[in-house]
Amino acid sequence: MDEQEAQELYTELKELLEARRMRDLRERLSEMNEFDVAEFLTELEPQPMAMVFRILPKEQAAEVFANLDVDAQEHIINTVSDRELGEIIEELYVDDAVDMLEELPANVVKRVMRTATSETRDLINQFLQYPENSAGSIMTAEFVDLKKYMNVRESFARIRRIGADKETIYTCFVTSADRHLEGVVTVKDLLLAKDEDILEDIMDTNVIHATTTDDQEEVSTLFSDYDLLAVPVVDREGRLVGIVTVDDVIDVMEQEATEDIEKMAGITPSDKPYARTGAIEIWKNRVPWLLFLMIGATFTCIIINNFESALATQAVLIGYIPMLMGTGGNSGSQASVAVIRNLSIGELEFKDIFSVLWKELRVALLCGVTLASANFVKLLLVDRLLLHNLEVTIPVAATICVTIIFIVFVAKAIGCTLPMIAEKLGFDPAVMANPLITTILDTLSLLIYFLVARLMLGI
Amino acid sequence: MDEQEAQELYTELKELLEARRMRDLRERLSEMNEFDVAEFLTELEPQPMAMVFRILPKEQAAEVFANLDVDAQEHIINTVSDRELGEIIEELYVDDAVDMLEELPANVVKRVMRTATSETRDLINQFLQYPENSAGSIMTAEFVDLKKYMNVRESFARIRRIGADKETIYTCFVTSADRHLEGVVTVKDLLLAKDEDILEDIMDTNVIHATTTDDQEEVSTLFSDYDLLAVPVVDREGRLVGIVTVDDVIDVMEQEATEDIEKMAGITPSDKPYARTGAIEIWKNRVPWLLFLMIGATFTCIIINNFESALATQAVLIGYIPMLMGTGGNSGSQASVAVIRNLSIGELEFKDIFSVLWKELRVALLCGVTLASANFVKLLLVDRLLLHNLEVTIPVAATICVTIIFIVFVAKAIGCTLPMIAEKLGFDPAVMANPLITTILDTLSLLIYFLVARLMLGI
Repeated sequence: MDEQEAQELYTELKELLEARRMRDLRERLSEMNEFDVAEFLTELEPQPMAMVFRILPKEQAAEVFANLDVDAQEHIINTVSDRELGEIIEELYVDDAVDMLEELPANVVKRVMRTATSETRDLINQFLQYPENSAGSIMTAEFVDLKKYMNVRESFARIRRIGADKETIYTCFVTSADRHLEGVVTVKDLLLAKDEDILEDIMDTNVIHATTTDDQEEVSTLFSDYDLLAVPVVDREGRLVGIVTVDDVIDVMEQEATEDIEKMAGITPSDKPYARTGAIEIWKNRVPWLLFLMIGATFTCIIINNFESALATQAVLIGYIPMLMGTGGNSGSQASVAVIRNLSIGELEFKDIFSVLWKELRVALLCGVTLASANFVKLLLVDRLLLHNLEVTIPVAATICVTIIFIVFVAKAIGCTLPMIAEKLGFDPAVMANPLITTILDTLSLLIYFLVARLMLGI
Repeated sequence: MDEQEAQELYTELKELLEARRMRDLRERLSEMNEFDVAEFLTELEPQPMAMVFRILPKEQAAEVFANLDVDAQEHIINTVSDRELGEIIEELYVDDAVDMLEELPANVVKRVMRTATSETRDLINQFLQYPENSAGSIMTAEFVDLKKYMNVRESFARIRRIGADKETIYTCFVTSADRHLEGVVTVKDLLLAKDEDILEDIMDTNVIHATTTDDQEEVSTLFSDYDLLAVPVVDREGRLVGIVTVDDVIDVMEQEATEDIEKMAGITPSDKPYARTGAIEIWKNRVPWLLFLMIGATFTCIIINNFESALATQAVLIGYIPMLMGTGGNSGSQASVAVIRNLSIGELEFKDIFSVLWKELRVALLCGVTLASANFVKLLLVDRLLLHNLEVTIPVAATICVTIIFIVFVAKAIGCTLPMIAEKLGFDPAVMANPLITTILDTLSLLIYFLVARLMLGI
């Protein structure tokens, strides 16, 4: 459904709503996908939204609810009766319920927990205790468990009986009496086997699994490496406590990529989408790096002050400081960002550091020579001839261009090695490397500039 | 399997290989996951790698092959006989075959195409024609198609008969006699229905689908919005030509995030992993932005030259140029990166531009005041008292701090609006916005600095 189709559909639905043709509206909504119903609800004002939500068929309501953003969820919770709320909570998958509870205000959480059955409450409480961004925090408890002595016909009978409420039925988990994970069997295996085959003979005992405390990024690597639909999560004693399904992992991957991008831009990552983050919170996420870099710039200030009297004799050099520092920063960030991303998706490891450095030095040679040549021509043609800046002599132009080559070399070398060293030392390369690299490169770029100028121009 | 376990396993396997115990090696490998076997093969030298590959059981070989990188694939193709090669190609899913062929040298491609059956060859040729990064280029032709007059028992019989070679059996596609897509039915629906139910009654006719020319990013949005395992791809006439499965989309998402990150760092994105990209190609991907920014810095140079004589009277101001330009650049890139990422994952749209701007202006006020206050204290305590720079008077410090506040305001405002305007105009916000924003902000930061200094210090 594209944007225009969606708008036409929403208009039609809104007309039904305004005409109070609730039965027709309910009929139309029940044919729609849960995600699209949720999108339609968020287009409405809070009051009609809650009203429309309450006419949804019961089996659709919980899934629509899970697709709403937390503000809409909160509004609905505050509108419905305890009994209705209880029904929604029971229908929600426990991971969706936990996601929601982590963001709701405390008084609303209390009411939700009060209306849930004690079994659901215990489960939710258990899930709330797993560390943020761990496998435990993204898993769900609704899976199909089978026993190894079952045959294929019995397995299908069980899947048919309990499958309707499970997040996935396609991967089934074979557990022992004390809930230890013994194997997995897929519905494809079952369909291709004979009715009388025993699970023990057809299940895969070499189970790819995660533990509750594993980082969610590791879990998502399992999915992309092994092309799985679900990964079982076991506790420290090896007991199966939940599963992570591929749709949850897609959300995790999106979130992790956003976090990497934010870190590289000097923003403390937050789970909240931008649209729902307040100005004060954004300020808290951004100002530390700005402060760090501002204070870090003290070094550049000291260097410039030290060369102040020398610069007075060749004031033309001052104008090129921003260009040279910019070139250093950009060259370095190209290298560091490429390395950080490849570390993060597992394409590079610390042991590759020398081959990476060797490659970056060759790239630096190519980039440095290109930039220096282009700049030499530009300095003499544009700055000297066109803009009549007669201080731009050939020795001055040569000084600037030699500086560029050195700066690009240093920038690429530091940009590629520092993130790898940070990772080796156990720091997050994205967080650690960028502010440090910028500060180091700014300082070094200036030092290189003035040293080259001293040697070539005798300032 | 963690790094250490993997190393132990590889050592054990290598010992079997060196002892020429090929039967034991084959036995061990056949128990392993295809991804792990491929990882083991890439640890070996080319010759033993090809040897080990050839002892793999036939049904495992094709999937291991699909998991190898293209260099290893090429080596194996050059080692095996035409008959063996033909068998591998027939076993590969067509999307994996196409991925490989797009990267192999022309002479190897020729040999692969020659050994394939004419049916496979036609299919591959058809797939190779879809534009890069389109739904057509990532889809596969191996899916389960059913007819609407079939009942559940007949459907299961067909799934059992043809399912073994299909990339997924869990989503089945109901097509008409002329291959038009009429509905989808999942194995879950089938399992929960009665044997005699007719597909027409249980299938979902409201099918979420893509067309062959859709961008792969739109396809991945369908998966994350609707929690799907497979999306059907239809041609312009509405005929079903292939499906995209969730495991392919996970790769697409990783690739798209990498591209966004590269674009923001001024790197032309490439599909090739860093480790397999040569220095010259990396240079080609990086140097255009460096050149653009270097030439863009002409503006800063002109501004500094224009204020040169004024600066001579207050030379202390020169030392703070890098800090102020850095603060502007960093403030701006925080805003632009946040907006670009949220545009790319569909959390923001052009119509949000005013609410985003309003939020960023409040963030700018908070950040600007924080930075200015911290800097005022730092200037007087560190630069004046500690470093004995007596030129840092209170009016000078005030000038610098007022400048910071203005710069942060301008940087946040431009940083958040320019990507949204770029998107509205049909440009890629990640590519268009960053180089432009940097150049604009560097120029404006300097202008603001000198104008504030002229007003406050009378230079």
